[in-house]
Amino acid sequence: MSALFDRHRKLIDAAVLALRERGFWSPFSEIPSTKIYGETAKEDGLAAFEARLNAPFQLPGHPEQKSVGGELSPWGMPLNISYPTADSKTLVAASKAAAPVWASASVEERAGICAEILVRLNRMSFEIASAVMHTTGQAFPMAFQAGGPHAQDRGLEALAVAWSEMSRAPREAIWEKPQGKASPIILEKHWRIVPRGISLVIGCQTFPTWNSYPGLFASLATGNTVIVKPHPGAVLPLAITVAVAREVMAGQGFPADVVLLAADAQGAEITKDLVQHPDVAIIDYTGSNAFGDWVRSNAGSAQVYTEEAGVNSIVISATDRFDAMCANIAFSLALYSGQMCTAPQNLFIPRDGIPTDLGHKSFDEVGQTIASAIDVLLADPARGSGVCGAIANQATLERVENARMLGRVVRDSAPLEGSRSATPLIVAVDAAKTSVHEEECFGPIAFLVAVADADEGIEHAAALACRKGAITTALYDIDEPRIERGIEAFARAGVNLSVNLTGNIFVNQSAAFSDYHVTGANPAGNASLTDAAFVTNRYRLAMWRRPKAA
Amino acid sequence: MSALFDRHRKLIDAAVLALRERGFWSPFSEIPSTKIYGETAKEDGLAAFEARLNAPFQLPGHPEQKSVGGELSPWGMPLNISYPTADSKTLVAASKAAAPVWASASVEERAGICAEILVRLNRMSFEIASAVMHTTGQAFPMAFQAGGPHAQDRGLEALAVAWSEMSRAPREAIWEKPQGKASPIILEKHWRIVPRGISLVIGCQTFPTWNSYPGLFASLATGNTVIVKPHPGAVLPLAITVAVAREVMAGQGFPADVVLLAADAQGAEITKDLVQHPDVAIIDYTGSNAFGDWVRSNAGSAQVYTEEAGVNSIVISATDRFDAMCANIAFSLALYSGQMCTAPQNLFIPRDGIPTDLGHKSFDEVGQTIASAIDVLLADPARGSGVCGAIANQATLERVENARMLGRVVRDSAPLEGSRSATPLIVAVDAAKTSVHEEECFGPIAFLVAVADADEGIEHAAALACRKGAITTALYDIDEPRIERGIEAFARAGVNLSVNLTGNIFVNQSAAFSDYHVTGANPAGNASLTDAAFVTNRYRLAMWRRPKAA
Repeated sequence: MSALFDRHRKLIDAAVLALRERGFWSPFSEIPSTKIYGETAKEDGLAAFEARLNAPFQLPGHPEQKSVGGELSPWGMPLNISYPTADSKTLVAASKAAAPVWASASVEERAGICAEILVRLNRMSFEIASAVMHTTGQAFPMAFQAGGPHAQDRGLEALAVAWSEMSRAPREAIWEKPQGKASPIILEKHWRIVPRGISLVIGCQTFPTWNSYPGLFASLATGNTVIVKPHPGAVLPLAITVAVAREVMAGQGFPADVVLLAADAQGAEITKDLVQHPDVAIIDYTGSNAFGDWVRSNAGSAQVYTEEAGVNSIVISATDRFDAMCANIAFSLALYSGQMCTAPQNLFIPRDGIPTDLGHKSFDEVGQTIASAIDVLLADPARGSGVCGAIANQATLERVENARMLGRVVRDSAPLEGSRSATPLIVAVDAAKTSVHEEECFGPIAFLVAVADADEGIEHAAALACRKGAITTALYDIDEPRIERGIEAFARAGVNLSVNLTGNIFVNQSAAFSDYHVTGANPAGNASLTDAAFVTNRYRLAMWRRPKAA
Repeated sequence: MSALFDRHRKLIDAAVLALRERGFWSPFSEIPSTKIYGETAKEDGLAAFEARLNAPFQLPGHPEQKSVGGELSPWGMPLNISYPTADSKTLVAASKAAAPVWASASVEERAGICAEILVRLNRMSFEIASAVMHTTGQAFPMAFQAGGPHAQDRGLEALAVAWSEMSRAPREAIWEKPQGKASPIILEKHWRIVPRGISLVIGCQTFPTWNSYPGLFASLATGNTVIVKPHPGAVLPLAITVAVAREVMAGQGFPADVVLLAADAQGAEITKDLVQHPDVAIIDYTGSNAFGDWVRSNAGSAQVYTEEAGVNSIVISATDRFDAMCANIAFSLALYSGQMCTAPQNLFIPRDGIPTDLGHKSFDEVGQTIASAIDVLLADPARGSGVCGAIANQATLERVENARMLGRVVRDSAPLEGSRSATPLIVAVDAAKTSVHEEECFGPIAFLVAVADADEGIEHAAALACRKGAITTALYDIDEPRIERGIEAFARAGVNLSVNLTGNIFVNQSAAFSDYHVTGANPAGNASLTDAAFVTNRYRLAMWRRPKAA
């Protein structure tokens, strides 16, 4: 039926099974090891990345009215790559022209092609890692994991959810209605998947692949053509993705324009033109709440899926592993300098301190121990840089600067050597006296927020999640009834909760095939990666029926 | 876990299985037989209906600031029933107060309660039939079927889809991530269903129960509280439904206000207030495109599911059963006087006529034979009235009057004895000379539309479906390649197609558990009864995870 589908059937079936069980499963290794990716994978990847620099990016046959490109690595160097691009009208017309043949492909053909794209991207994970590193500012290890295999996992997850939803109902059936003593009425019925139309994927700068692959593959699998609109500061990872997708499409006899790149220049973005285009039927958006609000309000009849932003909280009530807790929180704050949508911002701590395995700890002692744990973590400059990465956007540095004035500085932010960087700033405030911590402060900024007691912390954090949105929340506690209350409160606030994490697992982390990322139940986003709702409205079913021939 | 769930588990499981197979299945008998519904069911139903007349409707404990009610049966009599009601603010507050306990009920408890409501409604099918008959103008047999068991089937279908979607992913899992030679990281994860919020179901006058039950039961099953806003002209069927739901809720220890009735008066509707209320999170709407457009534009962040209206077409290309075809079409046009959203309006016929088993038939002969078949069908006054029913809305009669002027009258409309009624008007036009047939003319109005050939008819009908929406389409043909082209064209237009129907099955009919009603893929509606997309966005998943205790 489809050679690519046959080749990847086991992978897709395994993904569907993993989704049903939701234990740990990952087909694309997160370890950047030459044993797994091949003897020369590392050098080849770097060479491939370097060959992209200082040159026009090749997208054979792609609409091109002009070329754009101005990416600057947060690590210092200009990429000096130019990308072919066209205005929204031209891109939409090209997407529309490619649509009928893609819509009429079988579900199996499309699934096979999506899996093939993902497998090819996986082989290029080292190259993609460099591309992600030098557009997002992530350190290499994170750029590899999050930008490569973890993003590919999320893409496969979306494909698997789409595949299983489309496979749920039969494509044909016999309907036989009894008519008493007369002959029954017998109809044959046939259903077709009708894609919604053109799908627009709007990427962000910090996680260009991880946040874009779910929408990209969910839309492709369900028969929609896709226009990928990268952030002007992080084009390369998605340009590589689009190039691979176009190669696979063309190789299978489909129009390469099933997948298009809408590159644009900072200050001259074409995002709004695309969002408002009447032929755009699906929009996947990752970015700020402000622009998210604009997208939701201006998308017309397009189905919009968003991951926006929120204010994530940790409530520190009590712990029987005080040092491990502080080390764990320290890492969560330092990782990629708080530029993850899952990074905590507010640490709610009782004014009178907390009980721990090391005795009672005052509010200040908790803050100091976390601050010290950050210092230890970042003491070695190379390791520090490997954790914090670089700052993607200059505005983040200004935000850190301004945040110093919002309370009492418990730990100051400082640059690391050799990059545009900033270690975590920690500022202490009191919830009874201020609400500065209630605004999202994207970047390496954390507030220690004094509250009356743990229950007030839970209440405050949950209310904030309802009002401003939250993608993650964490609770450290030893009191089971209070943990229950926390579970209840955060579920109602529609935010995922991690309890008592220590060791090598962090509140920031969201694993494909197990964790749904974002719930869609608070203002941090209206969609969830990857639940059934994320795919089921990307296509419709059309039936034809007729009397069954005897 | 839940006694009601245990009691109805077999019913729910059977419904889930039926959805997977999509053959004929119906647990609620469409036959108004005393053998099935009980010796005295007919008399008891009529008595129960008559006891409702000329009295205040009892909804114990329901918010009541005033009472409203002005239903007039299209069959002639005033119902003279008053319903307790309150303003949108009060209703929303009551719904919100009932929400937490309903949200925290288990999936099984909710499914059991929904099934119990449906089973009780089924037992009341004779009473509901009278209520539907005297608000919609449907004749009794149709009011029984469509308003009773078929509506209950659609409600159960929505419950079954919601149940199976919520059962898909586990509610807990163990996540064990290998760490090389170190101990694995082991987390326990737990998921909760978080309902979206308050659900508003806006009913229509012609099918108050059939079109409202899917949204009502999909929302209830997924944990949302529901405010049912009936059409002011068809309150009783939904008031009975709400009364039963409230009884079951209260009997199970839940607040009756989980289900509320938002009765209002013609000319003083509170629909807009409810739609725009920020706490309304889900809206199910059945009605006109004009108001549907307003709802979609003004619903804020609420998830909106609509069934609006369209222009349904039949393309008559050729047939090997000419008389049976004409009789079948005649019935489709006459049934409930074209007041079904699935009724055909335009009959595209080649200008030069068509080949049939009775030889070549000219355009006029086709039209005449259909007209004659209608005359035969309605010749007996009682039978005629049983097919056509009464006209729900005075405006429909005016529309029929005006439509006479739009072309050459092939069959004139006339009232039937003893009711506000109108038999089908058939007007011949030519697609080359006019586009009057392209507007929706709700009611017993059909156009014979002359086209160059069958392919032009298909093209015209499909384009019209894309532009104005269509819920059904039919094709009569004997040329298989052309049938293929029709299947392709109508699938692209997102409209369900019936080919060569004759005998006791009609294009108007849409069977629960097999036919999806409305595709959501053209302007006739953005949702489909009942696909996964209809339920999956009515709830979200919230997780909590913690290290697994050794």
